[in-house]
Amino acid sequence: MRRKIRKYKNTIVLLSGGLDSSTLAYLVAKKSPPYLKNRVYSLTFDYGQSHKKELKSAKKIAKKIGAVEHKIVKFDLTLWGGSSLTDRKIKIPQNRKIPESGSIPNTYVPARNTIFLTFALAYAEAIKADEIYIGVNSIDYSGYVDCRPAFIKKFQELVKVATVAGVKGKAVKIKTSLIKMTKAEIVKVGEKIGVPWGSTWSCYMGEKLACGVCDSCQLRLKGFAQAGVRDPLKYKRLPKFYSQWLIKK
Amino acid sequence: MRRKIRKYKNTIVLLSGGLDSSTLAYLVAKKSPPYLKNRVYSLTFDYGQSHKKELKSAKKIAKKIGAVEHKIVKFDLTLWGGSSLTDRKIKIPQNRKIPESGSIPNTYVPARNTIFLTFALAYAEAIKADEIYIGVNSIDYSGYVDCRPAFIKKFQELVKVATVAGVKGKAVKIKTSLIKMTKAEIVKVGEKIGVPWGSTWSCYMGEKLACGVCDSCQLRLKGFAQAGVRDPLKYKRLPKFYSQWLIKK
Repeated sequence: MRRKIRKYKNTIVLLSGGLDSSTLAYLVAKKSPPYLKNRVYSLTFDYGQSHKKELKSAKKIAKKIGAVEHKIVKFDLTLWGGSSLTDRKIKIPQNRKIPESGSIPNTYVPARNTIFLTFALAYAEAIKADEIYIGVNSIDYSGYVDCRPAFIKKFQELVKVATVAGVKGKAVKIKTSLIKMTKAEIVKVGEKIGVPWGSTWSCYMGEKLACGVCDSCQLRLKGFAQAGVRDPLKYKRLPKFYSQWLIKK
Repeated sequence: MRRKIRKYKNTIVLLSGGLDSSTLAYLVAKKSPPYLKNRVYSLTFDYGQSHKKELKSAKKIAKKIGAVEHKIVKFDLTLWGGSSLTDRKIKIPQNRKIPESGSIPNTYVPARNTIFLTFALAYAEAIKADEIYIGVNSIDYSGYVDCRPAFIKKFQELVKVATVAGVKGKAVKIKTSLIKMTKAEIVKVGEKIGVPWGSTWSCYMGEKLACGVCDSCQLRLKGFAQAGVRDPLKYKRLPKFYSQWLIKK
């Protein structure tokens, strides 16, 4: 009897519609070799974020990468807030000097990545996924505790005891391909594989034009500037240190 | 200068409205000594469960214990199903012999307790809670992997790296007071502290009367029978082994 060879793998990609997760989605969709069909399932969260606009970007990217399905899980983190992204009474910082070492800005959403990964885990258990990709980054980031390798490592350990697949020794793998890359490196990779930057969204403000000065806009603009790539998005204004970033190119 | 003494603690209780979590909520609300005000925050999930009816019970219990606030987080696990509780096409087993060792019934909802605990973690981070109580039980239970001490232990480790409080050495504590108790013991404790059994709900079917023969009804009836306590709920019928449980009293 011939051994049955599985001809595909199921991969879940957490897709916010931002620069990192969109690049990651493109990477995952493109990287599968011809002999192994990589079925990409994209997963997005509508959690009451100030920049709900990113959901439109996520939908566009999911379509462009040909995701098998794109699920949007909706829940409301404004129920308890605790972040400027989920509590409209707290002001989202603008023109802050980034990175500001040692401090975690108020855009930190309590346990957000744990919630995201946990829903991915449930989804993975239901569709028997092999891998979950999350675009966390601990280099050009805002100091969020749940973006660090130590967090991912511990979550991977949890998977082994928290799911049936895990207990059976087939724990879904948490993949963080971008975790050690600078934003400029991510932009370069994305540019190479044709990420449609104009379809992505990063600004926390979620208005018609990107504000240019929230942390997320600043990190994005810095990445593009240092990578020497043009960002097709239109910005209301440019951050104070923009010219310095360009020089570093 | 006198040391500032904190006069209260914030406690989150995961409250489904069932027998275990209602008993736990009563325990937590009653156990605080007079010099330490225990502010109880109850948390319930509307996740597309077959027995949505339990939400009404959760509301009643939260009110009766005088919870500071009762949050109901809504999300939809029927998006991917994978369980008879979240996929109407899968039949909820009835009159199954319990416990049936080694097998996990289809009422297992992928990663459900991880999701529940993670939302509690986010809530805890936002309100600076000291403790999270979850009514998991690994004695008279259905074999769900995320009810076992090994799971809770690993989740506690995760808390330490996943949250700001955790990183600062003030990780919220996950408490599982019922984990090693039999259902009969839980009923006895609950009876002693006056849990209003008629306001709780356990049946997976979520119809007008409790079915009496789903796993959840059976575990409940067995607990009451072995504890020698009368369950005021009305049942459509009684399970096959009911008389044997009564004898063990």
